Amino acid sequence: MYGQAHRVSGAAGLPEVGKLRVDGRRLQARLEELGEIGSTGDGGCARLALTDEDRTARDLVVTWMRDLGLEVSIDGIGNVVGLRQGSESGPPVLCGSHIDTVATGGIFDGNLGVLAGLEVLETLERAGVSTRRPLAVAFFTDEEGARFAPDMLGSLVYAGGMGVEDAYDLCGIDGARLGDELSRIGYLGAAPCPGEAPYAYVELHIEQGPVLESHGEVIGAVTGVQGISWQEIVFEGQFNHAGTTPMAYRHDACYAAGAVVLAARALAEQLGGDQVATVGRLDLHPDLVNVVAGRALLTVDLRNTDEGALQAAERQMVEEIDRIAAAEGVTAARRSLARFEPVVFDSRVVELVEATAKAQRHRVRRLPSGAGHDAQMLARMCPAGMIFVPSVGGVSHNPAEKTLPEHVEAGANVLLEVLWRLADEELVS
Amino acid sequence: MYGQAHRVSGAAGLPEVGKLRVDGRRLQARLEELGEIGSTGDGGCARLALTDEDRTARDLVVTWMRDLGLEVSIDGIGNVVGLRQGSESGPPVLCGSHIDTVATGGIFDGNLGVLAGLEVLETLERAGVSTRRPLAVAFFTDEEGARFAPDMLGSLVYAGGMGVEDAYDLCGIDGARLGDELSRIGYLGAAPCPGEAPYAYVELHIEQGPVLESHGEVIGAVTGVQGISWQEIVFEGQFNHAGTTPMAYRHDACYAAGAVVLAARALAEQLGGDQVATVGRLDLHPDLVNVVAGRALLTVDLRNTDEGALQAAERQMVEEIDRIAAAEGVTAARRSLARFEPVVFDSRVVELVEATAKAQRHRVRRLPSGAGHDAQMLARMCPAGMIFVPSVGGVSHNPAEKTLPEHVEAGANVLLEVLWRLADEELVS
Repeated sequence: MYGQAHRVSGAAGLPEVGKLRVDGRRLQARLEELGEIGSTGDGGCARLALTDEDRTARDLVVTWMRDLGLEVSIDGIGNVVGLRQGSESGPPVLCGSHIDTVATGGIFDGNLGVLAGLEVLETLERAGVSTRRPLAVAFFTDEEGARFAPDMLGSLVYAGGMGVEDAYDLCGIDGARLGDELSRIGYLGAAPCPGEAPYAYVELHIEQGPVLESHGEVIGAVTGVQGISWQEIVFEGQFNHAGTTPMAYRHDACYAAGAVVLAARALAEQLGGDQVATVGRLDLHPDLVNVVAGRALLTVDLRNTDEGALQAAERQMVEEIDRIAAAEGVTAARRSLARFEPVVFDSRVVELVEATAKAQRHRVRRLPSGAGHDAQMLARMCPAGMIFVPSVGGVSHNPAEKTLPEHVEAGANVLLEVLWRLADEELVS
Repeated sequence: MYGQAHRVSGAAGLPEVGKLRVDGRRLQARLEELGEIGSTGDGGCARLALTDEDRTARDLVVTWMRDLGLEVSIDGIGNVVGLRQGSESGPPVLCGSHIDTVATGGIFDGNLGVLAGLEVLETLERAGVSTRRPLAVAFFTDEEGARFAPDMLGSLVYAGGMGVEDAYDLCGIDGARLGDELSRIGYLGAAPCPGEAPYAYVELHIEQGPVLESHGEVIGAVTGVQGISWQEIVFEGQFNHAGTTPMAYRHDACYAAGAVVLAARALAEQLGGDQVATVGRLDLHPDLVNVVAGRALLTVDLRNTDEGALQAAERQMVEEIDRIAAAEGVTAARRSLARFEPVVFDSRVVELVEATAKAQRHRVRRLPSGAGHDAQMLARMCPAGMIFVPSVGGVSHNPAEKTLPEHVEAGANVLLEVLWRLADEELVS
């Protein structure tokens, strides 16, 4: 399915694609060194986008890029690309991710994809391997959205999904203006934005969920990103004395909310597949032990990889909410907080990741991503895909976030081979 | 069943018991005048115990008592009793309630029982009726417990359920010491506390629930006060990403909480009778749209007039909570926040209220009180009972709290006849 590897590979004593391996210890050391910047002292990292900590971390990664001889460019939204030329010109095969974190983040989320990309380029460089196409590693601004909403901002702007001037005017949770902060930390660059479409984009990332670990699998070939539907529901009933109001007279907003919690679970179980449904927020008023709640605000988070299935889930949830409200004699007001269609990754990239992992003798699983990633923005421009490695206990956005060193190394080696094959392949029409 | 009325009644042109009526307009005017003190401007009243507003209100009611020629005594916890002598000595037939309110209170809760009692004494005085036993009207300190917990404090101390010195050291929500506030407003009196046991106690109160109104009934003959069991439950699960955590991997504290909400409703419906069950408080952590809740705190309020039934409800609820926790793979920690046994009012007083209401051609219903009242404390000392009148829409502890003027008058007239008959009856052995 893929073209033959570029002629340089394997020639004149040079290593063959599929046999070269990264230096896992060097990669691990860089993850730990980068993780010191913004360290929370408990293994975690607080490095919000465009803060002083973000600048220090950017400076360190840029230094590593320059030390490796990469051509570093910074674009108008602060995305940084380190490029290694190929034997031919043309758009590069790009990898990368982000180095900002949430306030209670770990050291792997995002950072792994950037530093593994750097490790791949260093491995090829040290082995004297030249690729046909250029290879590049990027880190995108404000992927987490923890300081400036929306999330995946840098890659969104890179892909042309938001104008750079609009992005400058975004206001952070601390009141800062994004454009001002970008200038302040010295990362308002001159490279054009939107950026040039890469030949392909591949992102290595931790799974942030429990699936790979629980199945004893090391590599995930990510098939796409789940579509997301967030609904907020406000039930208004009648607040009443918990002692003097017989059951038959109640219009209990808490009861309606509880019924939605159970209905969301039942919906996910009934639809099956990768459908998930979550009530994560539920606030009562007046929220007192002896008062039947007059008001309940709750959210329903629905995700599915299939747009049609997601729409069906939304419809069923709305019907259920209306049925519950009518039965309890409360009113239900609904509004959409967010809605993203599912993203399907390029089937050729998914197959290449899967085949490469198998060739490297790893247990591999195809799975969707439940979280958003820069790769879904790059998928608007070029064939894109992702490689997942296991998260211990499925934990992420938490100081306890961890991926075992052998899994970090395994993911980087799959990334190495995938990038190399994409960089050297004959153009597939 | 009750003894003959005292010989004075009906003699020499004096009105007969059962025919004399209160002045409903005078009572209504006093309710409105007292309601001006601490008025919130929206029909409501904020008159927390032992505040300046409480003092002003106390002073007004004491003035009305003195104007009527009552002997006013104030005890060590600030309970005020206005006494009208009978033709014989001995313990008085007591009525009353409280004049403190919650912060978002109405003008009827408590105040009605006090001012209706005053109106009864004024009606008898103006009609020249002398009773065999003394009659008295009281208002008890801090019934609401909205500033100093526990509620029903004044009547609790009056009945000997708490030592007065212990009560002085109670600390209010504003940091004030109860004893200091009692002195400050001039209501730390010399009358003994605990007080003398009355011959009987009868309290007129608004229902604060919807039962009488919805059945078109005007008078409630209150059979007792429901026992109360408050449980707090904390579920600890695992907080997880709502997108990356498949349904089968979840230990969702919100789901467990939602299941308890539905189980509490099902329990009340299954047990029937006057059993009520309420989840009024439910707090999630971290309470975010895209995070499976790791922690949920909720309360279950169970009430029943029968102690055995209440214990059975508690047992079933605990079993249900443990079953839900085990099924979801979360831990459940439970603690009791409050536990009161049911109070059963004196059957003779209940029958007298019911018979009197019927004789006055009102539709009447026996019903339990779901809320606590001073009468349940007095029931420890003497035969006690209560008269309920309808609350419009069942609303109370709310500026919209309302009882129709004709129902206020009807309740006061039943109180008049019940008190008079108790004051004149032959001693029933």
